[in-house]
Amino acid sequence: MTKLDDLHQSGDSSWLIAPDPTAPGLTRTVSGQDETGAEVAASVVEERPLTIWLNGREIVTAMTIGDYPEYLALGFLANQRMLRPEDEVTGVDHDAELATVVVRTATETDHEAKLARRIRTSGCAVGTVFGDMMEGLEGLVLPPAELRTSWLYRLSHVINRTPSLYLEAGAIHGTVLCREDRPLVYMEDVGRHNAVDKIAGWMRAERVTGEDKILYTTGRLTSEMVIKCALMGIPVLASRSGFTAWGVEIARQVGLTLVGRLRGRRFLCLSGGERLVRDTDPRTVAEEEKRHRRKGAE
Amino acid sequence: MTKLDDLHQSGDSSWLIAPDPTAPGLTRTVSGQDETGAEVAASVVEERPLTIWLNGREIVTAMTIGDYPEYLALGFLANQRMLRPEDEVTGVDHDAELATVVVRTATETDHEAKLARRIRTSGCAVGTVFGDMMEGLEGLVLPPAELRTSWLYRLSHVINRTPSLYLEAGAIHGTVLCREDRPLVYMEDVGRHNAVDKIAGWMRAERVTGEDKILYTTGRLTSEMVIKCALMGIPVLASRSGFTAWGVEIARQVGLTLVGRLRGRRFLCLSGGERLVRDTDPRTVAEEEKRHRRKGAE
Repeated sequence: MTKLDDLHQSGDSSWLIAPDPTAPGLTRTVSGQDETGAEVAASVVEERPLTIWLNGREIVTAMTIGDYPEYLALGFLANQRMLRPEDEVTGVDHDAELATVVVRTATETDHEAKLARRIRTSGCAVGTVFGDMMEGLEGLVLPPAELRTSWLYRLSHVINRTPSLYLEAGAIHGTVLCREDRPLVYMEDVGRHNAVDKIAGWMRAERVTGEDKILYTTGRLTSEMVIKCALMGIPVLASRSGFTAWGVEIARQVGLTLVGRLRGRRFLCLSGGERLVRDTDPRTVAEEEKRHRRKGAE
Repeated sequence: MTKLDDLHQSGDSSWLIAPDPTAPGLTRTVSGQDETGAEVAASVVEERPLTIWLNGREIVTAMTIGDYPEYLALGFLANQRMLRPEDEVTGVDHDAELATVVVRTATETDHEAKLARRIRTSGCAVGTVFGDMMEGLEGLVLPPAELRTSWLYRLSHVINRTPSLYLEAGAIHGTVLCREDRPLVYMEDVGRHNAVDKIAGWMRAERVTGEDKILYTTGRLTSEMVIKCALMGIPVLASRSGFTAWGVEIARQVGLTLVGRLRGRRFLCLSGGERLVRDTDPRTVAEEEKRHRRKGAE
């Protein structure tokens, strides 16, 4: 059994992409008063509209913090199955002034035509898109991936201590793509689905596959989060937050290992418990420090 | 100055609608394992699709916990300005089997026709709907409402101690309509916007106006939350969670008092601080107990 002390000693996590809480444009200092009446300058996250186009069609306006707009657009379209693995992307153009990203493909796909038709019949893309996502789960079974509890504790430990907008300004969600005990890519956004979509966009752009990965999120394990993770081909989803019943049901259906309420030594596994390798004694793991509970995107 | 001890003594909050965490169908018991490997039965919230129709048109599919579907539909349509105050609602029919709510009005409105046209041109209602909501803010100035800090502390105290799905199962958002120091209607849902929409639906059905109310939410003070509150005519929005910059900007524009990070004695007021009446010494207010921080819909 590994003791968490060993984990604590290895500080090098070699991020491929880590948050940059000091990047200009992601936060703004706003003046106000605290409970004592004292004037305070609070750091709050930005939130701006970004409209995503696929070829000649406006698809959605997302509210986003504004970083990695190209990954957000690519990942959104991939996770909504409007962009399939076989589609050749010929351009991803971000126009900061117009607040748009246009994704161009070599040929207009069936999916795009199908989408156009469905939007007209169903009134709004939300239901349609959700239906398309569910459709993508049919027959999908994720590879049976082992998950060591030492990885969970190590990931949670490193992620909670990595400087981030979450720690800096709160009111934001984070999603981290990991492999074994190593966190690789950490994306944040005002919407938790955007953070996941940015990861999906990065994976698509870098041709990274999901079968040996773990997805960590600060957000809840809802049906939509579970579906996105499954469509990304990632067999493990972990969160410091809780579950919904449908999220658990879908995870069990596709063979996804689902770990929630991961805080300090505690966690709850509601799907795939038989694939957990318990190589760490939880009594050797520290309770979560108070400061990691303070902020967050509730 | 009121001391919080006085507040603590008055336990009667006379809810008009309080959460019913024991209601059948809102939670499900799911088996899993905790960090020690022990089999546990966890209570998790339900999450189901509900499709909202306006007359003959399918508008949106919302993911909801499932209670108060009629209020959710009415409030969603009102907050999206698809249903205007002058529209006469002739029926609100929930079909549990089909998971639909159909809202019927006496006459098809201009807004409905406009919506149909816009969806076809813009590809998805999300951007359109957001545009319509912003349009509704033009020229809107909320009445300058006084906000006593004793009300804030009292509301936060009572709401945190009221039995709820939030305390029972976590992974859920709550929104509470209040007047002065009295919480009136407490709605919960997996999506924080649904919880607010249910409040808006209740207000519309009961012909209750917003000018003397306070809206409390467990969720973040994003632009959409601030816009909904302003469109509901409620001049004060308070949250235990944080802010986004655009949320603050819109609140200042419409004269909405915005209080965030309200936990125990602490809070931060980023809009409308001049309308705060500081009638409670924060040093007499207890720090938030740990158990109120544990769960939540992050």
